Amino acid sequence: MAKYVYKFTEGNRDMRNLLGGKGANLADMTLAGMPVPQGFTVTTEACTRYYDDGRAIATEIQEEIMQNLTWLEETTGKKFGDPSNPLLVSVRSGARASMPGMMDTILNLGLNDTVVEGFAEFTGNPRFAYDSYRRFIQMFSDVVMELSKKRFEEIIDDLKEKKGVKLDVDLDTEDMKELVTRFKAFYKQEKGVDFPEDPKVQLMEAVRAVFRSWDNPRANVYRRMNEIPYSWGTAVNVQSMVFGNSGNNSGTGVAFTRNPATGEKALFGEYLINAQGEDVVAGVRTPSPISELEKEMPEVYAEFVAIANRLEKNYKDMQDMEFTIENGKLYMLQTRNGKRTAAAALKIAVDMVDEGEITEEEAVLRVEPNQLDALLHPTFDPDSLAEATVIGKGLAASPGAAAGRVVFTAEEAKEWAAKGEKVVLVRLETSPEDIEGMQVSQGILTVRGGMTSHAAVVARGMGTCCVSGCGEITVDYAAKQFTLGGAVYKEGDWISLNGSTGEIFAGAVATIPANPNSGDFGRLMGWADKFRRMQVWTNADNPRDAAQARAFGAQGIGLCRTEHMFFEGDRIKAVREMIVSEDLESREKALAKLLPYQQSDFEGIYEAMEGCPVVIRFLDPPLHEFLPTEEADIVELAGEMNISVDHLKGIIEGLHEFNPMMGHRGCRLSVSYPEIAKMQTTAVIQAAIEVQKKHPEWNLVPEIMIPLVGEVKELKYVKDVVVATADAIIAAAGVEMKYMVGTMIEIPRAALTADEVAQEAEFFSFGTNDLTQMTFGFSRDDAGKFLNYYYDTKIYESDPFAHLDQNGVGKLVAMAAELGRKTRPDISLGICGEHGGDPTSVEFCDKVGLNYVSCSPFRVPIARLAAAQATLKSKKA
Amino acid sequence: MAKYVYKFTEGNRDMRNLLGGKGANLADMTLAGMPVPQGFTVTTEACTRYYDDGRAIATEIQEEIMQNLTWLEETTGKKFGDPSNPLLVSVRSGARASMPGMMDTILNLGLNDTVVEGFAEFTGNPRFAYDSYRRFIQMFSDVVMELSKKRFEEIIDDLKEKKGVKLDVDLDTEDMKELVTRFKAFYKQEKGVDFPEDPKVQLMEAVRAVFRSWDNPRANVYRRMNEIPYSWGTAVNVQSMVFGNSGNNSGTGVAFTRNPATGEKALFGEYLINAQGEDVVAGVRTPSPISELEKEMPEVYAEFVAIANRLEKNYKDMQDMEFTIENGKLYMLQTRNGKRTAAAALKIAVDMVDEGEITEEEAVLRVEPNQLDALLHPTFDPDSLAEATVIGKGLAASPGAAAGRVVFTAEEAKEWAAKGEKVVLVRLETSPEDIEGMQVSQGILTVRGGMTSHAAVVARGMGTCCVSGCGEITVDYAAKQFTLGGAVYKEGDWISLNGSTGEIFAGAVATIPANPNSGDFGRLMGWADKFRRMQVWTNADNPRDAAQARAFGAQGIGLCRTEHMFFEGDRIKAVREMIVSEDLESREKALAKLLPYQQSDFEGIYEAMEGCPVVIRFLDPPLHEFLPTEEADIVELAGEMNISVDHLKGIIEGLHEFNPMMGHRGCRLSVSYPEIAKMQTTAVIQAAIEVQKKHPEWNLVPEIMIPLVGEVKELKYVKDVVVATADAIIAAAGVEMKYMVGTMIEIPRAALTADEVAQEAEFFSFGTNDLTQMTFGFSRDDAGKFLNYYYDTKIYESDPFAHLDQNGVGKLVAMAAELGRKTRPDISLGICGEHGGDPTSVEFCDKVGLNYVSCSPFRVPIARLAAAQATLKSKKA
Repeated sequence: MAKYVYKFTEGNRDMRNLLGGKGANLADMTLAGMPVPQGFTVTTEACTRYYDDGRAIATEIQEEIMQNLTWLEETTGKKFGDPSNPLLVSVRSGARASMPGMMDTILNLGLNDTVVEGFAEFTGNPRFAYDSYRRFIQMFSDVVMELSKKRFEEIIDDLKEKKGVKLDVDLDTEDMKELVTRFKAFYKQEKGVDFPEDPKVQLMEAVRAVFRSWDNPRANVYRRMNEIPYSWGTAVNVQSMVFGNSGNNSGTGVAFTRNPATGEKALFGEYLINAQGEDVVAGVRTPSPISELEKEMPEVYAEFVAIANRLEKNYKDMQDMEFTIENGKLYMLQTRNGKRTAAAALKIAVDMVDEGEITEEEAVLRVEPNQLDALLHPTFDPDSLAEATVIGKGLAASPGAAAGRVVFTAEEAKEWAAKGEKVVLVRLETSPEDIEGMQVSQGILTVRGGMTSHAAVVARGMGTCCVSGCGEITVDYAAKQFTLGGAVYKEGDWISLNGSTGEIFAGAVATIPANPNSGDFGRLMGWADKFRRMQVWTNADNPRDAAQARAFGAQGIGLCRTEHMFFEGDRIKAVREMIVSEDLESREKALAKLLPYQQSDFEGIYEAMEGCPVVIRFLDPPLHEFLPTEEADIVELAGEMNISVDHLKGIIEGLHEFNPMMGHRGCRLSVSYPEIAKMQTTAVIQAAIEVQKKHPEWNLVPEIMIPLVGEVKELKYVKDVVVATADAIIAAAGVEMKYMVGTMIEIPRAALTADEVAQEAEFFSFGTNDLTQMTFGFSRDDAGKFLNYYYDTKIYESDPFAHLDQNGVGKLVAMAAELGRKTRPDISLGICGEHGGDPTSVEFCDKVGLNYVSCSPFRVPIARLAAAQATLKSKKA
Repeated sequence: MAKYVYKFTEGNRDMRNLLGGKGANLADMTLAGMPVPQGFTVTTEACTRYYDDGRAIATEIQEEIMQNLTWLEETTGKKFGDPSNPLLVSVRSGARASMPGMMDTILNLGLNDTVVEGFAEFTGNPRFAYDSYRRFIQMFSDVVMELSKKRFEEIIDDLKEKKGVKLDVDLDTEDMKELVTRFKAFYKQEKGVDFPEDPKVQLMEAVRAVFRSWDNPRANVYRRMNEIPYSWGTAVNVQSMVFGNSGNNSGTGVAFTRNPATGEKALFGEYLINAQGEDVVAGVRTPSPISELEKEMPEVYAEFVAIANRLEKNYKDMQDMEFTIENGKLYMLQTRNGKRTAAAALKIAVDMVDEGEITEEEAVLRVEPNQLDALLHPTFDPDSLAEATVIGKGLAASPGAAAGRVVFTAEEAKEWAAKGEKVVLVRLETSPEDIEGMQVSQGILTVRGGMTSHAAVVARGMGTCCVSGCGEITVDYAAKQFTLGGAVYKEGDWISLNGSTGEIFAGAVATIPANPNSGDFGRLMGWADKFRRMQVWTNADNPRDAAQARAFGAQGIGLCRTEHMFFEGDRIKAVREMIVSEDLESREKALAKLLPYQQSDFEGIYEAMEGCPVVIRFLDPPLHEFLPTEEADIVELAGEMNISVDHLKGIIEGLHEFNPMMGHRGCRLSVSYPEIAKMQTTAVIQAAIEVQKKHPEWNLVPEIMIPLVGEVKELKYVKDVVVATADAIIAAAGVEMKYMVGTMIEIPRAALTADEVAQEAEFFSFGTNDLTQMTFGFSRDDAGKFLNYYYDTKIYESDPFAHLDQNGVGKLVAMAAELGRKTRPDISLGICGEHGGDPTSVEFCDKVGLNYVSCSPFRVPIARLAAAQATLKSKKA
């Protein structure tokens, strides 16, 4: 029979998949003899079983929980429901991967009308006992019974108003009793039954609630963002309570072994005296720095520091710890590898190598590639900054610089962002419901909460700039405005934030790009470059982007889209002239006008890439994309083209397509109009010859990529045009120049027949954007309408356009790579879809043996690190 | 070194791939001692080499041809360019598969200004000599030098007018000389050089021209229609000339060993005295029946009959023979298996079994499945026929009945047909350029030409009704009208044709469906059913089509599309109400209105199928397809729906998709709105229960097909809805009923992950229409714009929507079949795309082990025969 419940004394740190991160580490700390309030973990398998059984906890699991509860009573010498010596427990979620704040927690479970009296007597602190009780009722009603949190707060506000007090601490024991009475009355009114008095009933309901919370919307969004599979499930930790809020000799805190914002090696954290854990995390009160604990409770502090040091040594990584002090005694409630900023991640990894704690390989594996993003983003332009007015200051909760327009709700943030507006989300405090709104914001500004508040933790994880705990701000949600330093800022006003200093500015301060190629970043990336097998190239369509990518370490251009060059200035006229042409001669005339533009574009790109490989993709979109759609524009164009409006409309109408994604585009254009391929070949080869003349040391080998190929004969047809054109130009120029012709693999048929395609293609570049569309049979432009249903129903857990679908699309990629190499063993294989900058997709590319990944310039460092991690992981496996 | 030229004495009938059908059979007849004018064959490999070498004949091949020419001179005792005893040759194409009239032929090659004089003397017939010479110049100029045929005809007409004569035969020797002079002058004017006098130059140019003609547009169209690969190439036969036009003791003819229209066992054919071969085929003069030759030349006739009988015995199939009589001596110019009508094919196959010549298996293999189509099409309704007026009569050139509107050119036929009009193509005579226009016509009517004229041969091959040789008709192309029996028929007027009697009717005579289940058809199909492994199902959406398909032998319905039922009458209102609904409740209300319609549809279909399996596919198209697009209709609908026009427009706008093919459709609708799947399940299961009650012996097992699945979880989600709904209905009805849930494999990802999909799917049906679109990445609606370029450039040789692309799409089908069976060994596999009725695709389906093919009702007999042939072929292999 499966074992669904483990005592903390039965587990260890290797049982993370079964016990979750929190459970495994609690067991590990217990094993190490650290002061951990005892308890047990209900496994992740019990959670998946709960869902398999139609959201029910099997009788055998219930029995196993009860047996462990009996054991816990024996161990602690306390008893569930015994007023004279009551056992109270916390019930917390704990998944395999840390998902802070995503799921539910219930504290003080075990209290009821009789227990609370005994508890008051036992602790000698009736206010504390009744405060705990009313908190429990509140939490249980909200989390377990899904009653509105807001209604309970209204009841408290009502009482405070009646009493004429402002703060919770101004409420006395009798007030707490009054709250308990009112809360229970509200509970009965809403649920039709009394609040459950039996602690065992409370416990089973709480476990059920934690299982259920695995499937709540914010957890689903978080998992999708962080690629955590739904199938993992969460464990539930039932732990005997210790009370940080049992008086001024008690407290609770959160601390890191190093600074999670900077990586500095020094204990970092904060604590609150006479408080429970969620008071710190929720950011309702602003806590004191951990260093002050040394003065307040020197012995406890010393013990904590010793434990913290042991834990970091044990886990060889920065730890994020929760502790509680109950009547002067320290208890460890949790330890885990701490979330950190990118800068901190780099510094910690590099420092730990220097400290001899970890190897260079381990350091490379230690930094989350996506995090680097934060380092690559702009900081304030010093000139603009010099003129900017600081209007206030909060905590530097997540580094970076941001300028945006003020919005006050996550919903508004999403709406404004959807319209292309940059926004700064201003909140009293954030909560997990706000996660999507935070994601689309340039920056986040909160009135309450410390460095470990929800806003701060989540923003650092996202790499989004955040200033938290700016208590000077008064927010008026109803009027959609806030006041700071006497000035009023309304919805839509521009403000700017410096997440590295905590400064807040009026107006939009200009930003400049990041320059991360130095210090810790440089050292770590150096190691990454040493270890990785794949090259990292970039997708760049102009010299500016190419130069940026080079600065970020790109070793080539994997995708240079030529059509983007067609829209600028006078070119679009020539493009339209070509499209409107009704015979070869006029088409060639229009193309001749485009040629010098294209050639100079390519020369600029070759210059910027300093001899690195450049893959130039020929015209891809359907021609109608270049034509105007508005009446006025059509009239204007007809005038310019010297044709009648009706005639032009006829041409536009004739180009209409039912499914443009699957229409007359890509190489199909070159099959119909080989003169386009001729012009583009001429531009590429002439540009290469010109640049080569200036830089004889570069040895340029132009790579021409034919898009949307589905059949080798199609590629051969276009390649023949390219080769004839190129050879003639090279011969006429009297130079020596090699060049390559390859294709994008973006049509399923090309992947399926890659052995044939490779007879002509000298390289493959996987265009996984289109390949994903065709393989799934859904258009990216339209999928938004139904993909949310798919996420809601767990059919898809992540966006296949963000993370390569390894099961379906990946199968085609692997097949094509294998078939391609069978025909042409030295074929160059790369990826140029957006997946090229996504770490899990990069790992897949390494696995199937691609030569390089190509991604947008700002993803290049991420891909370099991800590629190194992929190589290191595959060596391990 | 490769051998590129074979003498007729060196080949045999097994060398068809190398020598082409004509060359192999000429060799074979030579081997059998039959009277064949000697010559040699330049192989198909020489042709492919010609194309590989950039359309040039390699020197080594030219030398080999010249060596064989020398041999031919020695054998015949004649000499190229020798006026006293000149060797003249014909140069004809001959591919592996017969492609009558598609490529080019040159006769009388070897004549020049001096040879013609000697030839006149040698034959004692100067008019004949100069007539041959002017014909040669004409043919060489047209075929080899691509000068306009029309200009030569104008020169002849001009001379006839000057001379005041009407017919070619009225021109005398001097006139022929005059024509030669005028033709050569025109040639020099156009080409800038003299007409080539050197016969060896003429020969090499002619060989080149035949090679080139392999790639002419009509040959390309023919190959696409008949699935003949471009890569095969054509052989060239160089044969010493014999002259059917050397006097009244000479002649030429074409004959079949059996009647190619009816299959009757009797020599059938026609001949012309004093004529060359192309006079018969071109239908310019109307020839005499072969039986008359017995009276005219009894000895020659007897020899010919003996040879014909030997040939049929040899080839065990009806032979189509060309012969020439030169001065009383018979020469065989060609024999091949003859083209025949479907009825003749059946009769010949069945008769030859009865005669003990072939086995039943051979008989089944002998009939081209696509030909059956002709037997399945309508004949005239006797009542309507009784009232119809016969306005004329021609030859019954290709059976069947047709009514359509008169058009006079192939171009017009295509234009009218594209607009949905039924047309009858009326021509003086047809030529290979007309082939596409003939294809879209209901019937073909010609003024000139016999049973073996171009029009007759091609129409029989296509299964299109044709009346030829109706000499009473006067056509005025310019006025777009014809006169017959004193009445004038203009473009657009309706006429009707009976291709089995030759009758022509004014107006549109009503037609009735064919009933082919009897006689030869019945016997042959009986054998086919005995031999085939796969079942043949049908695609039918209503009881009428289902009954038709049953009558044609369908063993089940493989695809019943439910959306077609949504458009009729009041239903569309309920459908629109559902789409416009903005909450679940109103959607369910609208669906409840649809339920009784759907249920009665399904009851009707179950009744019609008499207990055979029926696969019902759930709603597939995107919802916007059901909404109106015209302003007036939108206003009307808004009124009906009791919502504002703007609101309705908003809804319609909201449903707009960029690529509807890849949009919110198929099972994606059921994921978003499970209530649709619930309603459809209810209709299916309740219908099955009702029908089962009436027919307890049927044991109905409803099969529900979920479309557009790309991921097993998606199928599982919808299947769970179906199962919950179905189980509840079955339980409530207190009956026992099994049912199955399966899916269409039409998304590449479903094929790639078919092992996973099969965990939920109890059957797969390959939806190869959509699978082809997604695998090729082109939309069928849009591909028309560029596919012609693809045919022109030989990138694609056939329409992948007509013939399954075995290389790409087929790979996915094979993979999915294998993966599906790995998970679920007894999974039922079928195909329901249009490919299910295409013989080559059916053969592929057999090869990958599908259980059935499903096709439209009229293709069912074709699929039955194709399936039998597939089994027989795979047994052979």
